[in-house]
Amino acid sequence: MFVIVKKIRSTQKLVPLVSTLTRQQRCKFSSLPELTKDRYPNVKRGNYGHIDTNHLIFFKDLLGETRVITDESECLGYNTDWIKANRGYSRCVLKPKCTREVAAILKFCNENVLAVCPQGGNTGLVGGSVPVFDEIVLSTSLMNKIVSLDTTSGVLTCEAGCILENLENHLDEHQLMMPLDLGAKGSCQIGGNVSTNAGGLRLLRYGNLQGTVLGLEAVTANGEIIDCLSSLKKDNTGFHLKHLFIGSEGSLGVVTKVSIQCPPKPKAVNLAFLGLQSFDKILTVFKRCKHDLGEIMSSCEAIDADSLAVTTDHLGLKSPLAKFPFYMVIETNGSDNGHDEEKLSRFLEDVMGDGTVEDGVATNEPSKMKAIWELRERITEGLIHDGYVFKYDLSLPLENFYSLVGIMKERVGADAVRVSGYGHVGDGNVHLNVAVKEFSPEVLHKIEPFIYEYTSKLNGSISAEHGIGFRKTKYMHYSKSKEAMDLMRNIKDMMDPKWILNPYKVLPQ
Amino acid sequence: MFVIVKKIRSTQKLVPLVSTLTRQQRCKFSSLPELTKDRYPNVKRGNYGHIDTNHLIFFKDLLGETRVITDESECLGYNTDWIKANRGYSRCVLKPKCTREVAAILKFCNENVLAVCPQGGNTGLVGGSVPVFDEIVLSTSLMNKIVSLDTTSGVLTCEAGCILENLENHLDEHQLMMPLDLGAKGSCQIGGNVSTNAGGLRLLRYGNLQGTVLGLEAVTANGEIIDCLSSLKKDNTGFHLKHLFIGSEGSLGVVTKVSIQCPPKPKAVNLAFLGLQSFDKILTVFKRCKHDLGEIMSSCEAIDADSLAVTTDHLGLKSPLAKFPFYMVIETNGSDNGHDEEKLSRFLEDVMGDGTVEDGVATNEPSKMKAIWELRERITEGLIHDGYVFKYDLSLPLENFYSLVGIMKERVGADAVRVSGYGHVGDGNVHLNVAVKEFSPEVLHKIEPFIYEYTSKLNGSISAEHGIGFRKTKYMHYSKSKEAMDLMRNIKDMMDPKWILNPYKVLPQ
Repeated sequence: MFVIVKKIRSTQKLVPLVSTLTRQQRCKFSSLPELTKDRYPNVKRGNYGHIDTNHLIFFKDLLGETRVITDESECLGYNTDWIKANRGYSRCVLKPKCTREVAAILKFCNENVLAVCPQGGNTGLVGGSVPVFDEIVLSTSLMNKIVSLDTTSGVLTCEAGCILENLENHLDEHQLMMPLDLGAKGSCQIGGNVSTNAGGLRLLRYGNLQGTVLGLEAVTANGEIIDCLSSLKKDNTGFHLKHLFIGSEGSLGVVTKVSIQCPPKPKAVNLAFLGLQSFDKILTVFKRCKHDLGEIMSSCEAIDADSLAVTTDHLGLKSPLAKFPFYMVIETNGSDNGHDEEKLSRFLEDVMGDGTVEDGVATNEPSKMKAIWELRERITEGLIHDGYVFKYDLSLPLENFYSLVGIMKERVGADAVRVSGYGHVGDGNVHLNVAVKEFSPEVLHKIEPFIYEYTSKLNGSISAEHGIGFRKTKYMHYSKSKEAMDLMRNIKDMMDPKWILNPYKVLPQ
Repeated sequence: MFVIVKKIRSTQKLVPLVSTLTRQQRCKFSSLPELTKDRYPNVKRGNYGHIDTNHLIFFKDLLGETRVITDESECLGYNTDWIKANRGYSRCVLKPKCTREVAAILKFCNENVLAVCPQGGNTGLVGGSVPVFDEIVLSTSLMNKIVSLDTTSGVLTCEAGCILENLENHLDEHQLMMPLDLGAKGSCQIGGNVSTNAGGLRLLRYGNLQGTVLGLEAVTANGEIIDCLSSLKKDNTGFHLKHLFIGSEGSLGVVTKVSIQCPPKPKAVNLAFLGLQSFDKILTVFKRCKHDLGEIMSSCEAIDADSLAVTTDHLGLKSPLAKFPFYMVIETNGSDNGHDEEKLSRFLEDVMGDGTVEDGVATNEPSKMKAIWELRERITEGLIHDGYVFKYDLSLPLENFYSLVGIMKERVGADAVRVSGYGHVGDGNVHLNVAVKEFSPEVLHKIEPFIYEYTSKLNGSISAEHGIGFRKTKYMHYSKSKEAMDLMRNIKDMMDPKWILNPYKVLPQ
């Protein structure tokens, strides 16, 4: 046990993590959102076929009765995203168990011009993982086998439907860990993580999936299996195709298997939770943290008071600190606890000695670290209790990281229940949330496109880690040039000429 | 100063580093190789236009007289690779100074179906950077400006022609460093590094360029400028186009600018040079090294006696150790020298205490570290003195990392001057070299395709970091499936329909 400054006060888990809720529970958890087709009447259904009896016969022959879901209430969880923002009306959910079945499904859909929405854990935040109209849902949930784990090299190979937390638990037994960690880890699937190039809490230290995914297998729109499932750290033989599937949100192919470089589980983990008076002080602490903690820093997160409040007020979590305008969560991963504690003590003495940080706790006790991490990881879940949430996920220069929160408070005014910001300060990635009682086009117009114009002027990204999905397609040009978008469209035309894969998503229509 | 076991004996630099030689000097340094068209008579010139007076008038109007080189002897250095393996006969070398000029050149070449060979520092090892026939050489040498350096975030943005060592020196002033380091750093250019997805000595710690390149600008075959020059750590807005240009060896576009995430310069660097009796012991040491050094390990290299001998015998370098069958170079980068020395001492006591390592030196004195690194980095240069070198760059499972050296010695027998192996054991990447007095098709047939078949059976890569270039195109199928190669060809057809960019390279004809 290692405590600097003061002991952590008790923390308590009162409601289940979103990650432990089933898909159906999550739907009941909140009232149903309006159908996407009604909320966004300007988006028109593409000229795709409609599911008929013959199609269903083919699917049932291929998968058996139980893996073809057509019942409306059973389909509901697959049609609705968990943040109550989007709802499709598909009446056909397919649950293949292997790559060969995915290939047969896509080949058939391509021949019959049936639109397909690939779906992993359905934990996305931009409407990318649910149908917009009646697209067939291709769920990877049953493709959840671990293929192999090389404990010497740390290379894990598994199917797309493996849940992130299950992989983490499996690796833990072998003193390894996943290079990524997300709040949604209990539900999200590795195939979805890879398809959306998920970022998360450890990116600062272990890099992004473009770097850690060694290989993958994907099925393209015509049912062709592209096997790039290398488990090698280095392979410069031709174009690096895997990157076409990492982050293209299922619109160029369905990822079916992944091989990923997993770092050794750190022998020492320490966590500090700090209270600060201003965002400027967060930047000061981040700089000192980089200097003092060096190679052991694994996370550097910022949270404002309004964001923390949703986890204490709505979810009943307890904060170990008194109220501050801002908080930071700083984690270290290292191989020698003595060395790490020394570095962390030096850092805390540094930032608390001169009052940059007013109060803080540090711990290496697993239960206490978990309690602190929940304060950060469950903000998204807590926000749902406010009503409808306009969610933004921006990359911005550090000096502008928090400026939009104040600007948005002014623009939206009394229309908002809460305007709050938190995120990965170490990666320049802020999550800005405008919570309102219920969805309102008027509030939307107060926020958009202003927020994207502002981001674009600062050369930021309008989607740092959440992706484009359904809800940001028409804003992509704020982050990408015409030539880049034309090239994307050419790639899409070449790889999915009938645009059957995840239509209405990623690329503007 | 930090020395364990024994002091380093004197090291001496007798001949200039390859990196300090000019292009012309490098050509004189060795006799001219046979023309590629004669050495590989099966490869036929594509149906491209021939340079005529009107073409030259256009180029001279665009660039001025001095940046259009047509003199045969001046062209020689651009036609010949420095390892004496390939030689084209281009009589047109173009030296644009900016992206706009590159765009104008490619647009013109595309319209006139003139083949183009993009060239950076021409330090490649697979014949990818020199013409095969009379392709126009598009040299990026004069595009060597640093655009910006954000010292807080560590993001460097620069033009493609910047020499790696110059960038390193610039960053050094700001307590930053490049995430990659290569033996060829004094000549190689960052645009070439990115285009070939160069690996090198620090990949183990800082990751590959697919992870560290934040953005780039490239010009496609039709002269279109694709601006993906983001300097953000996270940007999930659409397909991740930059990866089409990283590692595609100039065959999908010419990289003109790069923005790259540079890590802080470590406050402490330590280097150990170890002597060992067997390759099995290298694997033991690598495993213990991962355990004992953890997050501070930055390089883990293996060298066999025959590889080390080329630097001592041909280049006059001095080894600080007596003769051993194998050597290792292990580097640490950290933020606290006291902690790092403690970890390194513990590691060295561990591996030397039980005799796994027989002798070793450790140092943190810059001049002595440089002397040790030269023993590793100048092997490629030293090998040229043997005559012609058949070079292989393979990813293999660690237990098979060195097995091919023995097998090759048997297969090639007395035909070889030397069969040797060294490389990045931390990345599973071995450099195997078969040196002969002069190029011989008979020896070639003893080695190829056997070496690729062997690698393929072990699920290795036939090119870990050197790329496919000209010399490995017909062997790509040993590492890539038919479907993957078909998709590559479709991408090429879409992005460069006339195949004017770096023809005869990467994809099999």
